[in-house]
Amino acid sequence: MKNAPFKGIIAYPITPFDANEKVDILLYKQLVERLIVSGSHGIAPLGSTGVMPYLKDQEKEAITEATIEQVKGRAPILVGVSNLTTERTIYHAKFAEKAGATAVMIIPMSYWKLSDDEIVKHYDAVAKQISIPIMAYNNPATAGVDMSPKLLKRILEISNVTMIKESTGDVQRMHYLKKELGDSVAFYNGSNPLALSAFAAGATGWCTAAPNLIPELNIALYNAIQNNDLQEAQKIFYKQIDLLRFIVEKGLPRAIKSGLQLQGIEGGHLRKPLQPLTENEITELDRILKLVK
Amino acid sequence: MKNAPFKGIIAYPITPFDANEKVDILLYKQLVERLIVSGSHGIAPLGSTGVMPYLKDQEKEAITEATIEQVKGRAPILVGVSNLTTERTIYHAKFAEKAGATAVMIIPMSYWKLSDDEIVKHYDAVAKQISIPIMAYNNPATAGVDMSPKLLKRILEISNVTMIKESTGDVQRMHYLKKELGDSVAFYNGSNPLALSAFAAGATGWCTAAPNLIPELNIALYNAIQNNDLQEAQKIFYKQIDLLRFIVEKGLPRAIKSGLQLQGIEGGHLRKPLQPLTENEITELDRILKLVK
Amino acid sequence: MKNAPFKGIIAYPITPFDANEKVDILLYKQLVERLIVSGSHGIAPLGSTGVMPYLKDQEKEAITEATIEQVKGRAPILVGVSNLTTERTIYHAKFAEKAGATAVMIIPMSYWKLSDDEIVKHYDAVAKQISIPIMAYNNPATAGVDMSPKLLKRILEISNVTMIKESTGDVQRMHYLKKELGDSVAFYNGSNPLALSAFAAGATGWCTAAPNLIPELNIALYNAIQNNDLQEAQKIFYKQIDLLRFIVEKGLPRAIKSGLQLQGIEGGHLRKPLQPLTENEITELDRILKLVK
Amino acid sequence: MKNAPFKGIIAYPITPFDANEKVDILLYKQLVERLIVSGSHGIAPLGSTGVMPYLKDQEKEAITEATIEQVKGRAPILVGVSNLTTERTIYHAKFAEKAGATAVMIIPMSYWKLSDDEIVKHYDAVAKQISIPIMAYNNPATAGVDMSPKLLKRILEISNVTMIKESTGDVQRMHYLKKELGDSVAFYNGSNPLALSAFAAGATGWCTAAPNLIPELNIALYNAIQNNDLQEAQKIFYKQIDLLRFIVEKGLPRAIKSGLQLQGIEGGHLRKPLQPLTENEITELDRILKLVK
Repeated sequence: MKNAPFKGIIAYPITPFDANEKVDILLYKQLVERLIVSGSHGIAPLGSTGVMPYLKDQEKEAITEATIEQVKGRAPILVGVSNLTTERTIYHAKFAEKAGATAVMIIPMSYWKLSDDEIVKHYDAVAKQISIPIMAYNNPATAGVDMSPKLLKRILEISNVTMIKESTGDVQRMHYLKKELGDSVAFYNGSNPLALSAFAAGATGWCTAAPNLIPELNIALYNAIQNNDLQEAQKIFYKQIDLLRFIVEKGLPRAIKSGLQLQGIEGGHLRKPLQPLTENEITELDRILKLVK
Repeated sequence: MKNAPFKGIIAYPITPFDANEKVDILLYKQLVERLIVSGSHGIAPLGSTGVMPYLKDQEKEAITEATIEQVKGRAPILVGVSNLTTERTIYHAKFAEKAGATAVMIIPMSYWKLSDDEIVKHYDAVAKQISIPIMAYNNPATAGVDMSPKLLKRILEISNVTMIKESTGDVQRMHYLKKELGDSVAFYNGSNPLALSAFAAGATGWCTAAPNLIPELNIALYNAIQNNDLQEAQKIFYKQIDLLRFIVEKGLPRAIKSGLQLQGIEGGHLRKPLQPLTENEITELDRILKLVK
Repeated sequence: MKNAPFKGIIAYPITPFDANEKVDILLYKQLVERLIVSGSHGIAPLGSTGVMPYLKDQEKEAITEATIEQVKGRAPILVGVSNLTTERTIYHAKFAEKAGATAVMIIPMSYWKLSDDEIVKHYDAVAKQISIPIMAYNNPATAGVDMSPKLLKRILEISNVTMIKESTGDVQRMHYLKKELGDSVAFYNGSNPLALSAFAAGATGWCTAAPNLIPELNIALYNAIQNNDLQEAQKIFYKQIDLLRFIVEKGLPRAIKSGLQLQGIEGGHLRKPLQPLTENEITELDRILKLVK
Repeated sequence: MKNAPFKGIIAYPITPFDANEKVDILLYKQLVERLIVSGSHGIAPLGSTGVMPYLKDQEKEAITEATIEQVKGRAPILVGVSNLTTERTIYHAKFAEKAGATAVMIIPMSYWKLSDDEIVKHYDAVAKQISIPIMAYNNPATAGVDMSPKLLKRILEISNVTMIKESTGDVQRMHYLKKELGDSVAFYNGSNPLALSAFAAGATGWCTAAPNLIPELNIALYNAIQNNDLQEAQKIFYKQIDLLRFIVEKGLPRAIKSGLQLQGIEGGHLRKPLQPLTENEITELDRILKLVK
């Protein structure tokens, strides 16, 4: 088994902004603290929940450092370092390693659809420059490219690519990963509404923004799976599915921010073009949150 | 809870032909007997496995009668009665009821994409003419129309539509059915590679042609679920997944026929345009079957 | 150049029913006469406009004979003979030839997705039994199978498959056909809203139900193309596009029947599950027809 | 008619790099000069052909200034200023206006799928800050969001959004634009293989990287359309379609660079992760280019 330092609930903090659209590091640290205290098994800054592609280089660096300072070794940290160019991806990967990240997550962002060879060379070029593990992340909806199981297999030949995060929303991909790669590689689910199916299929962890709002339910699902109690897992999953669907459908940063406010927690501002949820959407989210609790 | 007389493994027999493409009723009965003896919890003649759309009216009637004669009450029987026109669907539904079927399965076959209203009226017109339960079957790949969860909800207002078979291959549909319809309606999985996810999501049964080839594994999966043993279910599922994928990808009637022959069991001929698997495909199937056992 | 006896506007009559859902042959003949008199360059009974899949064998035969009697050689006749089984397709193809059809149209209807080999053998088996030309028809939306340009090329190696009807709605398919097959094979457009693009791409004809309602506009479009007058063609196309879109979106048999009635022409009844357009849809169609004229 | 300062062939230069992946401004100017000299009716720097998303802010500014210097008023200039955040989009739009651009092109780049309201507000915020016209660009394949005709209509209510570039590859979108917006708004085709259909549908111009390789053919197609000579347009289109398809399929920057080199023109280096075409791809491109000439 390759070195896979994550399992269970890997929580994605949002990146909050102040009224002038500046990153609010103080508030960010408070939000990270909430995730740690409520029991998340890992912290993943600079994901799409953290609007990483909307941030400038220095902002990304500040978030990385703030996370490490705040977590203080209480959980492993997975830093998103994806960038359109290979040069910038290497830059951020090296920064994350030096700052103390446990591992980095890389999605092959693309404007032009990259070829398989281009993607392999991209991962390889980054992997050569760092020694911490890499989680390869497949999410065609945000990357614009869908890495086939065959391509993922090629990428896994790179020695420090040790983990795969799958967000296609198709559980068959996970069946393939588990069947083909057996126990040599850990795979993680990045599709919230697929949480139950993915754990049933053998996922090692669940990468999710949901612990910002309902950490107990997320962790309880993982615990039920660990206890081999499918009936309990099913029950807990159906309790949270409406929320999982809502946050995905409305966009994680927008939905988490509003959800925090509904719970009386400051979530900061969004950076444009992102706009707050509409009033109707907030009412709907309030209804869902009240049912969940 | 509405009257749902099926659970567990609902097995779909193939319809075998002789060398002149005539239905071979004698051989058909032997194949049904194998399904019963090996423990299937229900028998479903005239599904797509049974090439129902390729059969003439009298052939369908003969298959219905032969099934009932052979099963002799040892398992409930679900007869496929779908037809492009409402008039012919009613005809076959009434025939099935009179012959002694436990329930009928109806998919809204369409050439022109039917409107929601047309589909509801179609089900309603049939339901009025029979008193046994109806399983509404959603499979856009064969019907040419995808019944939305919202439409299925409308159809379930018809009193003797009591069961839903979902074959879109999207586990989210099952989450929706379970969440929205709660325990009032039973839903069944018709997508073989989704067997584990569907049971994890709460499916009452699995409609499948696989018991023609690997009945022990299909039944063992259901038993593990019944025992709330997810780890065992996962293990058994991964044993059979390659076969489940193969039979779907190659077409159920073709794949089952070849699989039977590889196991030394007569499977009869196919009706054209269906052609036997190629030699390469048979070699692949042989390899998969040997690994499974 | 292979023998391609059709060009221009190939009109598809509906199959009208009486109040008891019986085929109304007398009314059918009147509707065919209208198509001939208004200048259609070909007549195509038993297409999807003619609800061919909803008809019994004898009904199809009666329609074929009625068309030939009514047309009396004033235009070439293209009879739809597609069937799920090869045996029934051969039967109807032979019937059409004997009755005097100019050519037959065959779409590889499928319940199970057929393999390329199965489709080629299906066409070949039919072609061997008749000597009139065959138009191969590609329409994934109704057939359930999409014949790739590569497969179409294979089918065209059969000597009496001389024409291709393309209804994917993707003009690139026509570019491919024209570029690859050059002037050796005629291709026809079966996607109404693509009429202008298809003629611009070099289509020999347009297979359409629209002449039941707006024959002058359909024929004027073809004439403008023949006169190499793109500006006129564009003008005429934009006059009719709303109607072309409407009849496709609502289903040809339903939309044509209502359109005829709005014009004061008897269109008969539909066979269930098909239902008449709703009142709102009829109002919309009336508005479009009035603007067109 | 709103102010639409472009028509005909709007050529997209590539952004060449030196061996160290630095932008090569000198070479860039030479490539722009070729486009002007060979007769392009407009020049569009910082499109996806120009790998705009791979460039840093200063690099984008240098390209904008170099284009204006080199073109010296011989053709209108359309500068790509799209960015994930509204703030950066405004910044680049203002820079382009000040530098002397004729108009700017804006695609709603997105990581998270933006809502319609977010997109409208994004365009509106930029439009308020500049007074030159904006071309709204729809290309779901690169933006990750598909602007519906209805949304485009809303965006066109902003006074200086005067042009639409459509790159979905679906000619029906252009039919809609033409039919709904009539002569009040100009629409442009951004899908190379759709060039003939788009002009037939009434497109005002064609946004394309092809003039880097085959300017005569691109311009000849436009001239044939201007002369209302469809037969000639069709002939010229089929001459170039294989090349149009190739450059889209392989990625514009990669294909153009190799095509230039095959023609003995320096095209510079690519920025990683982009990799040169493979040897097989170059051989194929050489074959196509030789047939074209």
